[in-house]
Amino acid sequence: GVLGSGDFARSLAVRLACSGFRVVVGSRNPKRKAGLFPAAAEVTFQAEAVKKADVIFVAIFREHYSTLCDLADVLVGKILVDVSNNTEVNHHKESNAEYLASLFPACTVVKAFNVVSAWTLQSGARDGNKQVLICSNNQEAKRTVAEIAQVMGFTPVDMGCMSSACEIENIPLRLLPAWKIPIFLALGLFLCFFTYNLIRQVIHPYIREQKNKLYKIPIEVVNTTLPCVSYVMLSLVYLPGVLAACSQLYYGTKYRRFPDWLDQWLQHRKQIGLLSFFCAALHAVYSLCLPMRRSHRYLLIETAVKQAVEKKMTIWVEEEVWRMEIYISVGIIALGLLSLLAITSLPSIANSLNWREFSFIQ
Amino acid sequence: GVLGSGDFARSLAVRLACSGFRVVVGSRNPKRKAGLFPAAAEVTFQAEAVKKADVIFVAIFREHYSTLCDLADVLVGKILVDVSNNTEVNHHKESNAEYLASLFPACTVVKAFNVVSAWTLQSGARDGNKQVLICSNNQEAKRTVAEIAQVMGFTPVDMGCMSSACEIENIPLRLLPAWKIPIFLALGLFLCFFTYNLIRQVIHPYIREQKNKLYKIPIEVVNTTLPCVSYVMLSLVYLPGVLAACSQLYYGTKYRRFPDWLDQWLQHRKQIGLLSFFCAALHAVYSLCLPMRRSHRYLLIETAVKQAVEKKMTIWVEEEVWRMEIYISVGIIALGLLSLLAITSLPSIANSLNWREFSFIQ
Amino acid sequence: GVLGSGDFARSLAVRLACSGFRVVVGSRNPKRKAGLFPAAAEVTFQAEAVKKADVIFVAIFREHYSTLCDLADVLVGKILVDVSNNTEVNHHKESNAEYLASLFPACTVVKAFNVVSAWTLQSGARDGNKQVLICSNNQEAKRTVAEIAQVMGFTPVDMGCMSSACEIENIPLRLLPAWKIPIFLALGLFLCFFTYNLIRQVIHPYIREQKNKLYKIPIEVVNTTLPCVSYVMLSLVYLPGVLAACSQLYYGTKYRRFPDWLDQWLQHRKQIGLLSFFCAALHAVYSLCLPMRRSHRYLLIETAVKQAVEKKMTIWVEEEVWRMEIYISVGIIALGLLSLLAITSLPSIANSLNWREFSFIQ
Repeated sequence: GVLGSGDFARSLAVRLACSGFRVVVGSRNPKRKAGLFPAAAEVTFQAEAVKKADVIFVAIFREHYSTLCDLADVLVGKILVDVSNNTEVNHHKESNAEYLASLFPACTVVKAFNVVSAWTLQSGARDGNKQVLICSNNQEAKRTVAEIAQVMGFTPVDMGCMSSACEIENIPLRLLPAWKIPIFLALGLFLCFFTYNLIRQVIHPYIREQKNKLYKIPIEVVNTTLPCVSYVMLSLVYLPGVLAACSQLYYGTKYRRFPDWLDQWLQHRKQIGLLSFFCAALHAVYSLCLPMRRSHRYLLIETAVKQAVEKKMTIWVEEEVWRMEIYISVGIIALGLLSLLAITSLPSIANSLNWREFSFIQ
Repeated sequence: GVLGSGDFARSLAVRLACSGFRVVVGSRNPKRKAGLFPAAAEVTFQAEAVKKADVIFVAIFREHYSTLCDLADVLVGKILVDVSNNTEVNHHKESNAEYLASLFPACTVVKAFNVVSAWTLQSGARDGNKQVLICSNNQEAKRTVAEIAQVMGFTPVDMGCMSSACEIENIPLRLLPAWKIPIFLALGLFLCFFTYNLIRQVIHPYIREQKNKLYKIPIEVVNTTLPCVSYVMLSLVYLPGVLAACSQLYYGTKYRRFPDWLDQWLQHRKQIGLLSFFCAALHAVYSLCLPMRRSHRYLLIETAVKQAVEKKMTIWVEEEVWRMEIYISVGIIALGLLSLLAITSLPSIANSLNWREFSFIQ
Repeated sequence: GVLGSGDFARSLAVRLACSGFRVVVGSRNPKRKAGLFPAAAEVTFQAEAVKKADVIFVAIFREHYSTLCDLADVLVGKILVDVSNNTEVNHHKESNAEYLASLFPACTVVKAFNVVSAWTLQSGARDGNKQVLICSNNQEAKRTVAEIAQVMGFTPVDMGCMSSACEIENIPLRLLPAWKIPIFLALGLFLCFFTYNLIRQVIHPYIREQKNKLYKIPIEVVNTTLPCVSYVMLSLVYLPGVLAACSQLYYGTKYRRFPDWLDQWLQHRKQIGLLSFFCAALHAVYSLCLPMRRSHRYLLIETAVKQAVEKKMTIWVEEEVWRMEIYISVGIIALGLLSLLAITSLPSIANSLNWREFSFIQ
């Protein structure tokens, strides 16, 4: 059974019908709404629908939950599935599912399907996250809903008892919260270093010697900027650990909570580290592209022509040769080690390592 | 208990015995078959074996299930584990496990272990997929079989009730079905563009100016072909979304099913996108290899020598320089963005993103 | 309830209190120990604490389990959570959890939280592995502990019945055991080939012709060494399969166990293969860096100058050109194929492939 006639209710009815379930939709105005639902779904009055169904999806807004109170008698003993989401994080004191459970103590309430979008329901689970997070205080009801989700093509995930409902309701509102600060940090650092390098490599030679080096902006200036960003970010990964250790030494205990800013910083280390790796990888690609450029080719030929005209046979500078060989060699090794760190931060690899192995690699 | 004496039955007996279980094998001719099984497994008559065991693995073909009907009396109350597979997808109307359950209504039937190969059973779960998909209408029986799988070194995965049996039986027959069309598409596009580029870069100059440019085939022609394939594939990822939107606007509803070809296309977008990324990455590697080639070196030296002999000191063409700098710069950024898309399509990353984050990145 | 006052007990009390649980700590000397615990946790005598709690975390060493025997009466019917670890693999005949269960037959023992470090408990599950492996013979108790782990921010994983306890206790002692032999093998091979290449490319020309080629050590010698290591490792991946097949043909049966050394070898194939891929990838990066070096630039210019002075207009050697084009072309294709193998060995990808697909790709 589905109560409601919004976008989510209709998508749910479509998917349930496609998955072979018999669907009854409860509406306060079944005649007007019938056209909105697929032919396979029977649209009838709410009380009627509730009587016919064992599992009832409550696809209406939290604000209208109380309108269902008239149905309290017919709802006794049914499984109510709360699929609702909030518009902002922790908007209400208690989660929607817990509120629904308090309104209908004679029903078994299960929180599920709120992490799935209406579009996914309509078109089936194709790509992206196929998980349906489920929580309830009743094991049997949770299992029933999990099996429905399985048949619909989703992967049910047991999230424990009702107290997880709040967490589950906050999930769809998240938009990469852990990445915001690290990304703005990286952009800020990039801008600073880019400006400095632009002045040093392009503007200064132009003012002093009237040399037009503007062509250096898209590749060379960016390429000198990236490793600076990468280094600073990498040091920001390891700094908070040192600060935390100092704080513990200062207070003489490991069991004191860190100040909030340090705690936040410690929590963002993984993202800062991954951005540091991303900058380092981009730097590697940019560097590898250097000899492909026309400007490189022209400068090379010009030097050769100049040497030939002056009949200078050798231009070998041992120090320069060694410097570059060592730069490149150390750079490759550093990138290889950073890659290892990046790979172990993939969720599926991290889950196959124990803490001793994880610390060893870090 | 194991019923059957085929390859799978024997491998199952080996692994069960190695994992510390007491194994009884039921055969219609125990004397002749005893030699086939490991010494730790007791081989006896079918009825005998069934009496001694609580969990019975039915490792015989669906066609021979009916021969077990003589054992119906002794089988009462036992857990029957159906490990069978079909030779083709949806060969029979009902799944093997459901057929077995209908023959022995007094038994509890569990579908399990069919996704594991005989080789994996023999040698233990070493690499590849260690999951054993389990489904049954009886929770207790499912748990018992899950614990056996756990002790044998596999990862049991609960697939819900018996109606999933059909899906589980189809899994081992799959051979990358979602990749077939995208791969043939990519190969077809590659061939077309390769032929075109071969004519333009090698055959045409040969006919017109008798210049032998055959050396360009392995790298340069391939390298000009790859980005064309990549672009067309990338546009094929986004086109069906536009077509779907048009279809919805035309019919005035979101709840109408798309035509089958469009639905198929929508389902293959991820694979087409990954192949597009693969071509783009190959193009990057090929391009980076260009300056490593002998031909590049020779052409460079020849130009330098020609310039030196003619005493032309400068060959700098500002437009050419800028064009290349911008090509490379934009190419790196595009590849970086495509990499992000490719990384978020890894199952373990996709499962840690909610739909809002997934759509944002896409 | 928490019994014990060590590092783990304190971290556990901190995390439980932070997650909103009421925590009672049982100690033999509550007055002296009270200062060690967070204010939210009540510290009292052991018997007192046990009476107040339903779930009791036993955070004391296995050697001191017997000191709890005085509490046997008050412990009746409680859930005891064994969080202990051993100092070496399979130190005792039976696992700590099974030993605890044998001491208190009237309690329900659950093995859990031993894979989590005290540091993770204190600071919350931030990065790395968030899984808590749980096993018990009692479903209800297992579920209760799983829900506590969920609320604490970890991911509970059901590992079946008590017989898994031993395996779970061995996990935190593991330090990449499957990687040790492959890594030493790779290092050994690298050293051998490096010495050989050093003699050939640097020492021999120095002795014979007094040419100083020391600058080749950091990049060119390493770059000639890496593919040799990669090839030998790759062949070591496929060799044991052939040996296993020969052994099966020789003994005329598939059901005989392989000798231990062959079994070990078969189990390390994945790691050897990944190291082979790592060497191949490093070789690719090193090769791509070759034209970036000063030495490359100087040699190029010197050749050009020599040619110009001698007025030789052409230095094109068709054979050399073709050799290099084909080397690079085949190298890229080989690296592309190896990358596919490496990607399918990621746990989350491997779990989405069935055996037929996995073998097909291999």
